[in-house]
Amino acid sequence: MLTDFGLRDVYVAAMKAVILAINPEARIVDITHEVPKFSVRDGAFTLLSVYRYFPEGTVFVVVVDPGVGGGRRALLVVTHRYFFIGPDNGVLLPAALEDGVEAVYELRNSAYMVHPVSASFHGRDIFSPAAAWLTRHADPSAFGPEVPVESLVEPPRLKYLEVLGGGRALVEVVHVDGFGNLILSARWEELDEALGGLRPGDELRVKALCSGVEALARVRRVFSEAPRGELVLYRDSLGFAELAVNLGSAAEKLRAGSGCRVSLSRGSSGQG
Amino acid sequence: MLTDFGLRDVYVAAMKAVILAINPEARIVDITHEVPKFSVRDGAFTLLSVYRYFPEGTVFVVVVDPGVGGGRRALLVVTHRYFFIGPDNGVLLPAALEDGVEAVYELRNSAYMVHPVSASFHGRDIFSPAAAWLTRHADPSAFGPEVPVESLVEPPRLKYLEVLGGGRALVEVVHVDGFGNLILSARWEELDEALGGLRPGDELRVKALCSGVEALARVRRVFSEAPRGELVLYRDSLGFAELAVNLGSAAEKLRAGSGCRVSLSRGSSGQG
Amino acid sequence: MLTDFGLRDVYVAAMKAVILAINPEARIVDITHEVPKFSVRDGAFTLLSVYRYFPEGTVFVVVVDPGVGGGRRALLVVTHRYFFIGPDNGVLLPAALEDGVEAVYELRNSAYMVHPVSASFHGRDIFSPAAAWLTRHADPSAFGPEVPVESLVEPPRLKYLEVLGGGRALVEVVHVDGFGNLILSARWEELDEALGGLRPGDELRVKALCSGVEALARVRRVFSEAPRGELVLYRDSLGFAELAVNLGSAAEKLRAGSGCRVSLSRGSSGQG
Repeated sequence: MLTDFGLRDVYVAAMKAVILAINPEARIVDITHEVPKFSVRDGAFTLLSVYRYFPEGTVFVVVVDPGVGGGRRALLVVTHRYFFIGPDNGVLLPAALEDGVEAVYELRNSAYMVHPVSASFHGRDIFSPAAAWLTRHADPSAFGPEVPVESLVEPPRLKYLEVLGGGRALVEVVHVDGFGNLILSARWEELDEALGGLRPGDELRVKALCSGVEALARVRRVFSEAPRGELVLYRDSLGFAELAVNLGSAAEKLRAGSGCRVSLSRGSSGQG
Repeated sequence: MLTDFGLRDVYVAAMKAVILAINPEARIVDITHEVPKFSVRDGAFTLLSVYRYFPEGTVFVVVVDPGVGGGRRALLVVTHRYFFIGPDNGVLLPAALEDGVEAVYELRNSAYMVHPVSASFHGRDIFSPAAAWLTRHADPSAFGPEVPVESLVEPPRLKYLEVLGGGRALVEVVHVDGFGNLILSARWEELDEALGGLRPGDELRVKALCSGVEALARVRRVFSEAPRGELVLYRDSLGFAELAVNLGSAAEKLRAGSGCRVSLSRGSSGQG
Repeated sequence: MLTDFGLRDVYVAAMKAVILAINPEARIVDITHEVPKFSVRDGAFTLLSVYRYFPEGTVFVVVVDPGVGGGRRALLVVTHRYFFIGPDNGVLLPAALEDGVEAVYELRNSAYMVHPVSASFHGRDIFSPAAAWLTRHADPSAFGPEVPVESLVEPPRLKYLEVLGGGRALVEVVHVDGFGNLILSARWEELDEALGGLRPGDELRVKALCSGVEALARVRRVFSEAPRGELVLYRDSLGFAELAVNLGSAAEKLRAGSGCRVSLSRGSSGQG
């Protein structure tokens, strides 16, 4: 389960109750419920970064759903190894496409819903019961008509890398984690290539375009190798390029949040 | 499990450990542990709003317990479909009464407690072990003497609706959720009747008496139908009347929190 | 599981996914993930305060790991009743030593790791898989070479009590809980002895040396016996001496946090 509901309210518990009422043997794991409210982008990134560690056959229920109660469709996406359930707003797609989409169904069969179906809480009334029935081996095609993957709402942009020449590159912050680390919109290998090879000890000029703050960063194998307070660029545990400050916060140092563009350039004479 | 302990501390984990030590097969679900500290009213509302989605036979352990260690009794309330365990301060009653109370026992049998019983943590030493033994099919009457339901501490007021005539009604905010939505102290059907029928598109004057802030609200089927920033009155997924702002916070707009009285009146000439 | 990762990010979920992929039957319980970032001391205290309530054979995975990716060792500590897995920085030791260490192994066998092993997320790649294999009854000695307990990094100081004579004693705050209660670095019995016997109703002068704030505290059996706002010294549910304010926050009243030294003295003429 992955939502933006937070843990203060009962919304997550209501979803779990519905699942257990249908399948008392279901194993439920919280990915997180602290996705920034209504942020499809953060939700999509979060799912993408973790789904592959789950066992084959896992059903992911994702509720980051600013359009609930409007016309947006409710989806079941069957991929190579998993099932993804959630709204048709792009939040499922980065993970589902990476794993390989096999079929997409619209959740329309009211026999698999909690009644009365509310207008504002499809997580409880549509998504959760569908997930529970899937864990009881319901046939995906029983939930509703198949829809073409081309008809789905486009996923948010999680990859972005512009090579500017002269050893400069432009990326975006796709996520700020709880340590204040800035996860960038490029895989390490891509950035490595764009900047002509990054080796431990290399120095880069970093500029957060949203705040104007500039700083020097050093390439490291891991942030804990850096002296306290140093800005570090490294390959994080998910394979992304990431800016971090050992025992500190890169988000604070650069005054940069999710969506902020960041320029990276070689040498101390870069113009950011 | 429903508590005001928060997730920073080990209190919740200690309760789970006690349960699993007695019944390793127990399924434990967190409703929330973020009930405002010592707020029996918020705890009671939270329980009321979600209990019915759980499977029959569920044991609810509720620890919102400002009087722990004093004279207040520890209770097991057996209802039509469930078991409710917690302090005798009213927190269990709105849900238990709605489901139908069959018997109430005082938890006094020390054979079902963790020893030494601390003076300040009955959640770990009395409530959790009782819940675990119930899941192992202990007889409710084994926990202690039956007590009459009339002797229990009264529940907090969750329903309140005063009809003032001239198309005006007075309600209270019973809960503010994580989105800033204000859940009101009346079922939609009750408010609908008090205001002479509410239809999508109707306009109402809303005044938060605690802050003095006035605003116009529009009746909608669901908040996502509203333009960004509009105050909306709608039937929420729990059946309550609720004020919300699409992609915003009604609590901020009206500067209103839990317990705040709100007047609702028809037409733009209302005086709040 | 006990970490300082927080619940906003996917780190905890990635660890759970890894565990379930190895052992789908594993029962996973969160102790807390809100340990102050990088605070080995708070992590060690948290573990010490709760481990003993868990069933025999429980595997504790503790990731409070400022030195990840550096030279610090990854450990499996086998004790009388439990298994403790985490970094060699002292975080495991207070609990493990109390339970009785039987053997310590360094986690070096790559057959029990997730590959590729990242430099910065050993929680996912080394600690979690080791825990999962242990629940499938892997032999502890299969994970790596045995290491002498004397070679381990020393545990943080959780016990501290200096008796100054004249009915005065010096202690430290080892933890501030979510209610603002200050848990002190001495068992109740130790403090009781140091101050010449503490009985309900006794009055003590308390001074927080970090802030200079002084206040009178009364010894109580439990904080709920005190009038609202009164500072109370009592034996908490974990057996520690604790300062609390009924329906308030001792941390705020004394402006004291974790690590603050506190002097306690008899009578109103104490000098702190």
